[in-house]
Amino acid sequence: MSSAPDLRLDELRALAEQDDLRAFVERAARVHPSDLADVLAALEEGTRVRAVAELPPEIASAALAEMETAEHPEEILLAVGPDYAAELLEELPSDDAADIVGELPPDAREAVLAEVEDRADVERLLTYSEDSAGGLMTTEVVAVDQDATLSEAIAEIRRQSREEDEPYDVYAVDGARRLVGTIPIARLVVQSPDRRVRDVMRAPAAVVRPEQDQEQVARIMARYNVAAVPVVDAGERLLGLITFDDVIDVVEAETTEDLLKFGGVNPHEELGASWRVAVSSRLPWTLVNMITACFGASVVYLFQGTLSRAVVLAVWMPIIAGMGGNAGTQALAVTVRRLALKQLPRGRAVAVIGKEMLVGAVNGVVVGLVVGTLASALGGAQFLGVVVLLAMWGNLIVGGFAGAFIPLVLERLGADPAVASSMFVTALTDTCGFLLLLGLGATLLL
Amino acid sequence: MSSAPDLRLDELRALAEQDDLRAFVERAARVHPSDLADVLAALEEGTRVRAVAELPPEIASAALAEMETAEHPEEILLAVGPDYAAELLEELPSDDAADIVGELPPDAREAVLAEVEDRADVERLLTYSEDSAGGLMTTEVVAVDQDATLSEAIAEIRRQSREEDEPYDVYAVDGARRLVGTIPIARLVVQSPDRRVRDVMRAPAAVVRPEQDQEQVARIMARYNVAAVPVVDAGERLLGLITFDDVIDVVEAETTEDLLKFGGVNPHEELGASWRVAVSSRLPWTLVNMITACFGASVVYLFQGTLSRAVVLAVWMPIIAGMGGNAGTQALAVTVRRLALKQLPRGRAVAVIGKEMLVGAVNGVVVGLVVGTLASALGGAQFLGVVVLLAMWGNLIVGGFAGAFIPLVLERLGADPAVASSMFVTALTDTCGFLLLLGLGATLLL
Repeated sequence: MSSAPDLRLDELRALAEQDDLRAFVERAARVHPSDLADVLAALEEGTRVRAVAELPPEIASAALAEMETAEHPEEILLAVGPDYAAELLEELPSDDAADIVGELPPDAREAVLAEVEDRADVERLLTYSEDSAGGLMTTEVVAVDQDATLSEAIAEIRRQSREEDEPYDVYAVDGARRLVGTIPIARLVVQSPDRRVRDVMRAPAAVVRPEQDQEQVARIMARYNVAAVPVVDAGERLLGLITFDDVIDVVEAETTEDLLKFGGVNPHEELGASWRVAVSSRLPWTLVNMITACFGASVVYLFQGTLSRAVVLAVWMPIIAGMGGNAGTQALAVTVRRLALKQLPRGRAVAVIGKEMLVGAVNGVVVGLVVGTLASALGGAQFLGVVVLLAMWGNLIVGGFAGAFIPLVLERLGADPAVASSMFVTALTDTCGFLLLLGLGATLLL
Repeated sequence: MSSAPDLRLDELRALAEQDDLRAFVERAARVHPSDLADVLAALEEGTRVRAVAELPPEIASAALAEMETAEHPEEILLAVGPDYAAELLEELPSDDAADIVGELPPDAREAVLAEVEDRADVERLLTYSEDSAGGLMTTEVVAVDQDATLSEAIAEIRRQSREEDEPYDVYAVDGARRLVGTIPIARLVVQSPDRRVRDVMRAPAAVVRPEQDQEQVARIMARYNVAAVPVVDAGERLLGLITFDDVIDVVEAETTEDLLKFGGVNPHEELGASWRVAVSSRLPWTLVNMITACFGASVVYLFQGTLSRAVVLAVWMPIIAGMGGNAGTQALAVTVRRLALKQLPRGRAVAVIGKEMLVGAVNGVVVGLVVGTLASALGGAQFLGVVVLLAMWGNLIVGGFAGAFIPLVLERLGADPAVASSMFVTALTDTCGFLLLLGLGATLLL
């Protein structure tokens, strides 16, 4: 069970490092493929290749399937040579095989696939986009005829599935392999074996098309509480199956992407990327931010005359701009998630923007009074407190507006509302904040 | 299937609104509980209560279980009265029943539970924290004796499960109800009925304790590719089961919480909260941000003399501060996700901070050269370009440092590294940015 697994895995790793491959193979068969994948990933490359070459192909391939893309399982295939690589691929479900083959350089891909007996499934899966239902599905799906009896269906399931498979749902199809129903495998156990498939099946709770986005697939599975969702083509023919474990990985990966986008990082930057990769991933957005930051600065440029006569205004610039940016980022985080979860029906845009502006206005009064009083107390110019209060109040309203308006506009334009939104929000709150503070300062103080 | 569901649901809603409850009930039985839940949530309260009262309890309760917490299914229980409420609860799996009962005010809770026959399970689940495995699990778990034959086991499964249940896995226990193995239900179909449970079961890939955090549970299920994970107590006795559909909801909710925390919003603010709720949820962090923003401002306060002699420095303040904040937020997003995914083994902290500072240094040179050249060209003071270049370069290094260091420190202190990190990062980049720009300005320009 799960007690002290780390110790066992450390021992396993040590066996490989000491080149005691017989003991390594024997122990490796008794750990979970995910754990074996971790052990393999932690080995030096030479040791890893020797260890994989010694493992029985069904064990090595199960571990390969559990390795992260960032751990480059395809490099193991390259190292063991096309014959053994093909043997490993044949052991894998077609979706995992396609994922690994897709990472190989084109010539190596051809060399390996040439040795794979049933290469058609893998090649078809490679034609789908990685982020789509087609890229996520496996073609190993158990289908039975709707007119079969349950005992015939059970025999058919035995024939179609390998011993290590444990299908959750079986699908009923008509003569043209069109999907007509789902039979939870538990029903096969509980119902009388003489009944027909068509009498115990039910309508599938949900189906997806191969071109649908993987995030949509995850949301459909969560909504309809299904552990697996069938993929059908435009003619309702059954193409494959997506299971919950692939979907949990998708949702985890989307969380990372969403946070990176919000932070102004290329969402495809691997978290453990080298500094060289990180530089080239972040520099483009850094340069975009440089341009947006210039809007705020150009307001200050125009008000240099005001500032030179009331330099104390410069003290309050970062607070007004920062608090507006904070209010904007708060509104942005809420709005981006509402859009992602489709919790924002069209036609409600005005109400959403209005709410965020109202929140900004209320918080703006509170913070404006505190900071304005502080400005009055520290002094430096008559009416300074009033200028700071009004600028703060106005800029928090701008923040609420920008945080809701900008992602809504990006969504309408067909762009991803999470990408770069925070930069545009900050540019707007900086610019308006300085305009309010220095404009009011020029009017009231001088 | 899933073709044009919206139209069908609009019709269903219209039937309820026209008070044609007979037709409503007939149609409601044919849609998915998740869809029925949406229709109920969209109705006026009076209509909703009348509609629920007409529905057969098994259909009404399935829809209640699919309502979001924010849609307040417990209000329906309150409205239909304790007798029918108890009937609805008895139809529900214990985890869903406990979730809804937990939202009732204490006196109503007692009134409803008094009518529930088997209240012990629900009450025990209420003792676990909502964010824990115990709060997520259902107590409806099918357990068979390890010494039974498979045909005895199948009979036992028929006895323990209701017709609408479709268990994926069955659990093998010993005489003291200690969990000893898992039997995928497919094996019961495929293997000979004379074999014993102990001969076909395998060790559970993973188990969890009721007090474990729900995010950990999600990660364990994704790692070991299990659609359900059993919950056991310290004596390995089987308490309940957590299924993948609850876990997908958890991961979706965590994505929302992570983004809200990053944006400086209380992660428990409901996305559709009223402006009053939003104000009180955001004001505390707004006030904290006000204090952190004062650090940067106080640097400017101290350098008013410098600024009054070279007011052009104020133009570059927002760019230096903003770009440093941007670099810091980028490093922060990456580091927060690495910590959340446990991809940062202890002892690597120095390497991580070093990488982020290096990324900041490289991007800082690029941006510093562009902005420094611009500053030179716009003029205003001799050496202004050099001051801007150096301040930009330094502040992007500070950003990289802050974005990695602050979440690492918060994690070591046992605090959530995502909460408020972005505020502290921005406070540091503002303060250091102004210090660099105005300090260098005072030295080199005047």
